[in-house]
Amino acid sequence: MAEKPLIFITNDDGYQARGIRLLEKILRPLGNVVVVAPNIEMSGKSHAITGGKPLKLSCITKEEGFEEYSLEGTPVDCVKMAFDKVLNRKPDFLFAGINHGSNLSINTIYSGTMGAVTEGCSEGIPSVGFSLCDNDKEASLADCEEFVREISKDVIENGLPKDVCLNVNFPLGKIKGIKVGHQAKGFWSEDFTTSEQEGEKTIFWLGGEYHCTDDSPRADWNIVNEGYAAIVPMQVDFTAWKILDNITSRFSKI
Amino acid sequence: MAEKPLIFITNDDGYQARGIRLLEKILRPLGNVVVVAPNIEMSGKSHAITGGKPLKLSCITKEEGFEEYSLEGTPVDCVKMAFDKVLNRKPDFLFAGINHGSNLSINTIYSGTMGAVTEGCSEGIPSVGFSLCDNDKEASLADCEEFVREISKDVIENGLPKDVCLNVNFPLGKIKGIKVGHQAKGFWSEDFTTSEQEGEKTIFWLGGEYHCTDDSPRADWNIVNEGYAAIVPMQVDFTAWKILDNITSRFSKI
Repeated sequence: MAEKPLIFITNDDGYQARGIRLLEKILRPLGNVVVVAPNIEMSGKSHAITGGKPLKLSCITKEEGFEEYSLEGTPVDCVKMAFDKVLNRKPDFLFAGINHGSNLSINTIYSGTMGAVTEGCSEGIPSVGFSLCDNDKEASLADCEEFVREISKDVIENGLPKDVCLNVNFPLGKIKGIKVGHQAKGFWSEDFTTSEQEGEKTIFWLGGEYHCTDDSPRADWNIVNEGYAAIVPMQVDFTAWKILDNITSRFSKI
Repeated sequence: MAEKPLIFITNDDGYQARGIRLLEKILRPLGNVVVVAPNIEMSGKSHAITGGKPLKLSCITKEEGFEEYSLEGTPVDCVKMAFDKVLNRKPDFLFAGINHGSNLSINTIYSGTMGAVTEGCSEGIPSVGFSLCDNDKEASLADCEEFVREISKDVIENGLPKDVCLNVNFPLGKIKGIKVGHQAKGFWSEDFTTSEQEGEKTIFWLGGEYHCTDDSPRADWNIVNEGYAAIVPMQVDFTAWKILDNITSRFSKI
């Protein structure tokens, strides 16, 4: 019998979040599981890393086939810490989430959960992020459980193309099926809430609203709004290849 | 005579860094300049945003054609704050840097400076990030000054393609010219420094080493190592379009 795969799990909602607990439950039968997740919520931390201050690691659980740690750091810190110091080797797979909140469209760029996924991908590990499109930390995860299990099994069995990771988003409630698509075009309009003064400083709270500008039926935002789970294959090469040659002739003249 | 363009500037090294001071000096003759930059160093903050705590804004300078503010927040917070509360409208252009340290290859994903640039791009603003490939905050910026000026002038005059921003990196010392290229393939190997114990917690400091795995002469890492400035056009669509159809047929079976 083949050795069990080494599965690494993290998230950005913190190691005590309901989403990561369910992900652990789903993945433990599929391999040896090691969790390193932030000790507190780290939503919106994107691909941030911690320089200039120490990272504190605590062991929560250590038993046959399952280890869990919390780290006073970002999700990407968790990945790097795990790969260098917690695991005896790089994991075979990285799974992140289940995130409480959408990582559709441009939102993936702000997400700590997807930061961890792209970090894993950049280090050559087949990596998948799962998100439930509801910010309520108490929202029911029941409807996505079977889909998380089946997608995870497929990735563990068949791997992923080189340099590609998956961003999986679920609608709340009954899920009609899975559709593969692309990142929807869209943007955020800012709306900072009322300011106060603190001496010379003006105080604001960040707020805003997302606007989808993509009417493609394959845009992830639209897939989820139709009641399907959206899988977007992502890469960590940000080069705008399509316009590379145009830009080349233009700036070569300077 | 046409109205002067409204130019927004930020960085991740903080508003007092030498790099942003030079960028201000270069751009002030080219338009009305507004700066909102972090009050302290925010390197490695990527696309992080600040939720759950307030953002404090201080006015440093306010004169005809030039305003400067510091914000207790990340570079992306600075962009959002500027667009919503500081400027009377969206800027015509966003420039970030001059960053003290390389944003070549995968390093762009960790960079607060490039986080600000991609935020600007996602909101439809022609946006450019400049970086000097030397971490020494006292390194000479003299050799890149003229290149920053010429690239900025070109972008202000001709704009940028829709949904594309520029990542510009300079070698230290004499610059042979400009080459346009792509993000180099590469990865970081972690190397956390010696741990201590604090009760049950183990303490680490993040460290690591970058490895370029790309031998293309058009890879940004290689361009800079040949003594040229590297310009990479970047996009904020992370979809792995090339493999989209393969992945579609595979996951549609679940």
